[in-house]
Amino acid sequence: MTKVDDTSSGRPRGNDAAGKARTSRRGFLAGAAGLAAAGAAAPALGNPKNQPPNVADWTKALGDGVATRPYGHPSQFEKEVVRRDVQWLTASRESSVSFTPLHELDGIITPNGLCFERHHSGIAEVDPADYRLMIHGLVDKPLLFTLDDLKRFPRVNKIYFLECAANSGMEWRGAQLNGCQYTHGMVHCVMYTGVPLKVLLEEAGLKSNAKWIMAEGGDAAAMNRSVPMAKALEDCIVAYRMNGEMLRPENGYPARLVVPGWEGNMWVKWLRRIKVGDEPWFTREETSKYTDLLESGKARQFTWVMDAKSVITSPSPQVAKVRKGFTIVSGLAWSGRGTVKRVDVSLDGGRNWREARIDGPVFDKACVRFYYEFDWNGQPLLLQSRAIDSTGYVQPSKDDLRKVRGVNSIYHNNGIQTWHVKADGEVENVEVG
Amino acid sequence: MTKVDDTSSGRPRGNDAAGKARTSRRGFLAGAAGLAAAGAAAPALGNPKNQPPNVADWTKALGDGVATRPYGHPSQFEKEVVRRDVQWLTASRESSVSFTPLHELDGIITPNGLCFERHHSGIAEVDPADYRLMIHGLVDKPLLFTLDDLKRFPRVNKIYFLECAANSGMEWRGAQLNGCQYTHGMVHCVMYTGVPLKVLLEEAGLKSNAKWIMAEGGDAAAMNRSVPMAKALEDCIVAYRMNGEMLRPENGYPARLVVPGWEGNMWVKWLRRIKVGDEPWFTREETSKYTDLLESGKARQFTWVMDAKSVITSPSPQVAKVRKGFTIVSGLAWSGRGTVKRVDVSLDGGRNWREARIDGPVFDKACVRFYYEFDWNGQPLLLQSRAIDSTGYVQPSKDDLRKVRGVNSIYHNNGIQTWHVKADGEVENVEVG
Repeated sequence: MTKVDDTSSGRPRGNDAAGKARTSRRGFLAGAAGLAAAGAAAPALGNPKNQPPNVADWTKALGDGVATRPYGHPSQFEKEVVRRDVQWLTASRESSVSFTPLHELDGIITPNGLCFERHHSGIAEVDPADYRLMIHGLVDKPLLFTLDDLKRFPRVNKIYFLECAANSGMEWRGAQLNGCQYTHGMVHCVMYTGVPLKVLLEEAGLKSNAKWIMAEGGDAAAMNRSVPMAKALEDCIVAYRMNGEMLRPENGYPARLVVPGWEGNMWVKWLRRIKVGDEPWFTREETSKYTDLLESGKARQFTWVMDAKSVITSPSPQVAKVRKGFTIVSGLAWSGRGTVKRVDVSLDGGRNWREARIDGPVFDKACVRFYYEFDWNGQPLLLQSRAIDSTGYVQPSKDDLRKVRGVNSIYHNNGIQTWHVKADGEVENVEVG
Repeated sequence: MTKVDDTSSGRPRGNDAAGKARTSRRGFLAGAAGLAAAGAAAPALGNPKNQPPNVADWTKALGDGVATRPYGHPSQFEKEVVRRDVQWLTASRESSVSFTPLHELDGIITPNGLCFERHHSGIAEVDPADYRLMIHGLVDKPLLFTLDDLKRFPRVNKIYFLECAANSGMEWRGAQLNGCQYTHGMVHCVMYTGVPLKVLLEEAGLKSNAKWIMAEGGDAAAMNRSVPMAKALEDCIVAYRMNGEMLRPENGYPARLVVPGWEGNMWVKWLRRIKVGDEPWFTREETSKYTDLLESGKARQFTWVMDAKSVITSPSPQVAKVRKGFTIVSGLAWSGRGTVKRVDVSLDGGRNWREARIDGPVFDKACVRFYYEFDWNGQPLLLQSRAIDSTGYVQPSKDDLRKVRGVNSIYHNNGIQTWHVKADGEVENVEVG
């Protein structure tokens, strides 16, 4: 921010008379609509003294016209703001993950083009005309729905976070990945539109022993998970839209299951089948995967809920160095058990906590945006955040989690993240309990 | 929706023993996390009787891997869901408009790639490194901000609608355009992130006679508008993000003015200058344009607020024919004076009104989504909606508006829209007062 040597009069030349006459007649500040003589001359704004220095090239020529991009995309200057994968993480990209660039975003809505991906056999390219969803099993009448059928049922609009159970999984064994895109980027938050699953299940008619559903995807993995009926009836949605438009192919086009607050693996994409049963199916994804192996050799199973969690997205390792002076700590928090009630920030690795400012809407099982503003004097910092949710649960330290879970875990690491801000403003991922 | 002849057992083969043993031990429906022996075998889901008919091709082969599209885009099957312009509307596309495909969207968030455009000299392609915003005029210290400077000020996140004053302008003279994309598509609704203008003005220090600002864009039109200081201090934002990511070039990248509830022309894009003065500037865009010419030959001036308005987005002329049976009327409503309190729907051209269901979040000066569900028996309909806002204002009929404003107007047509649903389900734009 620079002070400008401003020699202008405070008003462009030629406006004085007309302007004063009009003002005295009408009281514009009150905001009332008034009447002026039609066709009054519009004085030109041509005083060069009023121009900022160096009129830019883009002001000197016509730009592209409308609808030269019928579907728009970001500025050429933002081309580094993309999802990224980590090539060594999995054997193939068809069974891998890409990460939301959290460090480049603000607010709570994730643009559709930047929502992280996790595929088990790549992106199924589903033709919506041939899409079918079957509901069968312990129902009175098995049903087959086309996409048009789904769109004829009453629909709801809900903003929810979706987090992969393996988000922050590498961090169980200490600071591994240098940037919140990689440590926490398996989360996104959009507005879904779809049919409450309850409505579809009631259309099929549930038998008295209907206690579980199994949701199966139309990808080559036929990804499937068991969901208890209580959750299916409570708030699950068969969604076909995200942020207003149809789902993106990588997010399950044309329809996916939304299981609010629960691990992302259950939000079955390219949803082709819901089977109703009286017991869980113990599929691969809820036995050999998505269970939490403890030190004892036993595994926690059916750990569906994503507990309260938060991360500071800026400052963070992928962002420009911190400058001295007024500094904004910005981050995201979420809880699968309800709303985020409070977020605290620590500058000293958890010894002292100060309440952050939550700004923007707070929805059940959605991300919230928090800020903490302070003057940085150049002293090194250990930046942390912790979320407190509507159940009173406080996001724990990684060490507290490890005491209970050991270090064999991959999933459900909601421990507090630490960024070390060095004296020169550089930020790195470090381990502070 | 089809009934399926389902001959399956309700549970895939091989699960019975393990499944029953586990269920009886733990009570899954209560949702409690339990412990299971690690490494338990995951039974295969291979019973062909459980498969929907015709396993699709996309289930038989690997799809594309992650991050093959680092910035994602919609399905190939959605390529008709785009902004469209009307070639004959203006002399050049650099000074024209493209329309949001409202009929293809749901919920309240507009994806960034589909937000309508209105340019006066095309899209300024601003290099963010060279971007500057000057604040000068009746201030204690004129200031020049870089984009980084703006990002160092405390920021807010707000969801607002933006409507062009000329939205529905063609409809003043009767039913002209056949589809809500064209009749009402100069509106969008996103989450903005930016600095309250008040903060920046206070940084510069307002002189006691500072009563107005003039905001000027960095496009070749140097588009500029006067805004009264009361509004500038109340809720205006210098925004640099929409839906989390940086603004799109066509929406003012890297920074624009947000003037909640007021006509879109004032939301100056590519914002380069804010001049503080004691009177309005009477620029071209608030004298020869964006005033409402009345029958008397006088013009309403400074008609900034966008009054309560609504439109049924489906059924509508660009959407597939209506089918008999359960039918969902879906639409958007908004008000520049506060929140939308209620939306009514009429099936008979305004003789009878029924209250619609508002679903999803309701924010101040943002779009809300409404639904009205009924059984259509094939009788022709005259579909209408009307919004009622928190001030008690009821969206008027077009005839009521014309009685006051005549038919010379271009701007601020918030009259009730009518869609005629014919007996065969086809929908057309018609005039019903």
